[in-house]
Amino acid sequence: MSIIEEPFTTTTEPPYTRLSEKTKIQVIKALQEVSGKAYVLHTLYDLALYEYDASIERARPDIVVLPASTQEVAAIVKIATHYHIPVVPRGAGTGLSGGAIPIYGGIVVTFTRMNHILAIDYENLRATVEPGVVNIHLNQALNPHGYAYVPDPSSQRACTIGGNVGENAGGPHTLVYGVTTNHVLGLEIVTSEGEILEIGGEAYDTPGFDLTGLLVGSEGTLCIVTKIIVRIVPLAEDVKTMIAVFDTIEDASNTVSEIIASGIIPTAIEMMDQLILQAVEADSHAGYPLDAAAVLLMETEGMREAVNAQIEEIVAICKKNQARVVRIAADENERQLLWAGRKNAFGAVGRISPEFYVQDGVVPRTQLPYVLRCISEICRRYQLKVGNVFHAGDGNLHPLILFDAQVPGELERVRLAGHEILEICAAVGGTITGEHGVGLEKQAEMALIFTEVDLRIMKKVQTAWNPDQLFNPGKLFPLPGRCADVKQL
Amino acid sequence: MSIIEEPFTTTTEPPYTRLSEKTKIQVIKALQEVSGKAYVLHTLYDLALYEYDASIERARPDIVVLPASTQEVAAIVKIATHYHIPVVPRGAGTGLSGGAIPIYGGIVVTFTRMNHILAIDYENLRATVEPGVVNIHLNQALNPHGYAYVPDPSSQRACTIGGNVGENAGGPHTLVYGVTTNHVLGLEIVTSEGEILEIGGEAYDTPGFDLTGLLVGSEGTLCIVTKIIVRIVPLAEDVKTMIAVFDTIEDASNTVSEIIASGIIPTAIEMMDQLILQAVEADSHAGYPLDAAAVLLMETEGMREAVNAQIEEIVAICKKNQARVVRIAADENERQLLWAGRKNAFGAVGRISPEFYVQDGVVPRTQLPYVLRCISEICRRYQLKVGNVFHAGDGNLHPLILFDAQVPGELERVRLAGHEILEICAAVGGTITGEHGVGLEKQAEMALIFTEVDLRIMKKVQTAWNPDQLFNPGKLFPLPGRCADVKQL
Repeated sequence: MSIIEEPFTTTTEPPYTRLSEKTKIQVIKALQEVSGKAYVLHTLYDLALYEYDASIERARPDIVVLPASTQEVAAIVKIATHYHIPVVPRGAGTGLSGGAIPIYGGIVVTFTRMNHILAIDYENLRATVEPGVVNIHLNQALNPHGYAYVPDPSSQRACTIGGNVGENAGGPHTLVYGVTTNHVLGLEIVTSEGEILEIGGEAYDTPGFDLTGLLVGSEGTLCIVTKIIVRIVPLAEDVKTMIAVFDTIEDASNTVSEIIASGIIPTAIEMMDQLILQAVEADSHAGYPLDAAAVLLMETEGMREAVNAQIEEIVAICKKNQARVVRIAADENERQLLWAGRKNAFGAVGRISPEFYVQDGVVPRTQLPYVLRCISEICRRYQLKVGNVFHAGDGNLHPLILFDAQVPGELERVRLAGHEILEICAAVGGTITGEHGVGLEKQAEMALIFTEVDLRIMKKVQTAWNPDQLFNPGKLFPLPGRCADVKQL
Repeated sequence: MSIIEEPFTTTTEPPYTRLSEKTKIQVIKALQEVSGKAYVLHTLYDLALYEYDASIERARPDIVVLPASTQEVAAIVKIATHYHIPVVPRGAGTGLSGGAIPIYGGIVVTFTRMNHILAIDYENLRATVEPGVVNIHLNQALNPHGYAYVPDPSSQRACTIGGNVGENAGGPHTLVYGVTTNHVLGLEIVTSEGEILEIGGEAYDTPGFDLTGLLVGSEGTLCIVTKIIVRIVPLAEDVKTMIAVFDTIEDASNTVSEIIASGIIPTAIEMMDQLILQAVEADSHAGYPLDAAAVLLMETEGMREAVNAQIEEIVAICKKNQARVVRIAADENERQLLWAGRKNAFGAVGRISPEFYVQDGVVPRTQLPYVLRCISEICRRYQLKVGNVFHAGDGNLHPLILFDAQVPGELERVRLAGHEILEICAAVGGTITGEHGVGLEKQAEMALIFTEVDLRIMKKVQTAWNPDQLFNPGKLFPLPGRCADVKQL
């Protein structure tokens, strides 16, 4: 039997009929027995809060449950299986790709109450957390002891580690340290049959298949994660943060390539263009210039002597590439202010536009100047404003397209522009998501980088784990009707 | 349907009947059409070379093929599927867990001719290689340009990168940099249906499932890897290597824990005990002391100033823990000599024993002194000599049990001692393999750390990829009859 005998589509859509009122009452009763009445939400008023995440998608769940333990999650999954209802896990709802949107309704399992740091083992450099732990809370627990958990998405004040695991989240410091998957040692999960499993946890090399690697970033489509063992690292002796101001995007891009080529890998190299700088400065007054074409925000850490030597070399490369100003944060306050500007950039854009749509393409670093020119050209063609704030060191672009959904046709133009941008990323040898995940937003674009055979083998893996398609259905895979666009080898 | 309704076993054993002479001739003809007559081996004389690897297992293949391209590999897999014959991929045969042993016969695909470095992209820090590239050859190509590929198994002068990917190999420098899976960005593979797929390759976060992570370390049971995209890194400005000599194992172990707890993570911390030191010194004359209880071989790298500061701190910790001598390699020659001693340790043991059996358990660093005492006690009880040479920083033990297979019953005692050692590793919260893989040797021990549910879900993944069990059959999973021993949650 050939696996290419018929074109690739997901299961027929929608695979789930909405719950009848009678069944819904039965399900609610069963869930209340598991988690208690207070933690099963089902009124329209309560459900409205769970309709959306940080993407532009929305859909209403039938029921929301807030379990307090792994055992409760397992019981919830068994109820969902019994009634053939979708189960969608949700962290803080900060996701940018629609991963937590219950497009076929069903039960949203939210981890608000499973927010405990269960253990920190400094000697063996690991911590065990529940999925609802807010990213920054773990660091607040670790930092006073001289340790840190590395992945730091810009939403780290709100987002949960469970959500980070689902989407394999990144952050500005992924350049040298890698994304979430590089920091997860093990998981406790609930399978689609309601079984509880422990996976990995003790060593670099897991005997058998590396299921931890498979599950991190699987966007809730294979299992529900109920516990996470993460790697922690000692804080560096010294950390220095600097900005370099450029009059052209090209100079800033060339600086990035040249720094990496010189053998220095800073912990972060972030780029912000003029539109973003103006929004950020109006919001945080960190001292970012308003008339520059681009600013690089860079950080390096390690032992004091090494950091100073690296900073000197970076400054020299910036100057060689016509940096107008290079400024090193004088103290921790100034450093925090520079980062606050960057980390609140998305929020700051809210000051200048009613809405925005953020893309998440990745390109080889050497292609940055070309791709940034294309983005600008595409948005001009669709009559849309765009700003860029992104992980330049990783080549991970985040064009923010500004729009107003009240203007008829504008959202459609935004989607088309977003799609064209990802087409360019794929065409230059890059990919369609660096850290936000595929979710609902990039299903069509999966076809830009995967062939039918690729998708079929992923689907086989999904079917092995989740045969009834109850876990976060309708995500990741291209939707029916898109099969003709699948990449040809 | 519950997934625990019947005890876990693999398919009935053996699932393949040996080829009849008539079919064998047909298969040989078909393979010769693909790879040419010179590259299809089938005489007993030729096959004898492919009966064994560096483990204590052996079995004869029916046919060995040496393909020259991915297309040939795909064609070979299609022939194997047509005739329902096992396919076992093989690198250099340096594996220590029997992964490349064709226990049910069939076709061994060896990558001797697919040994080309296809591309090195310094700007984007990646290299693309064929699976037959010898590990050290890649570094010989990179080093003159100031770059390196990190994973460095002790067999790196012989082992191939394809084999490293199959077993998720480690090496002394995994402590700070991670094992093979942390350095593989993408793969080209052939599926069990003979399809060619590209997986990952461009960015940290793969859209869709992280199949690269799943496939690295899957020991040839899911697919055949035909191309590998690896991460390369700039060479550090400075590297310093030192040894510290101790009169007790406890002092050496405490030194390891204290260095890590201090926040320094050296690139390598290797421990050798007295038996190993004596063997190594007789072999390489690196100046290792013969009367010490343990020596730590440590290396740190980075910018010059940072390295010097780290070395000072390490020396202070060693002295505090009663190190008798601390010696820093004065120059590159002395450094190479110290490493040559360590990397040839297994070979050196060949001088003092006809055979040896190496185990590969992992324990939390803090458990090292206890577990080393247990190993010594277990081997005394079985009247076996044991030496320890291992990645102490990772808690990755390599007890080498010396034996002589000519002595009746000795091999059986070795196996029993090895099993007891892994039981201890599992009991203290460790695991059964750090870098050598499960292969044939540790199938029974999988049950020490995995439950029935764990194994069933792995089997489901395997079945999704490899439904006819033709890829490296009889590896990884516990054999029938062992199900009663499976770990209970």
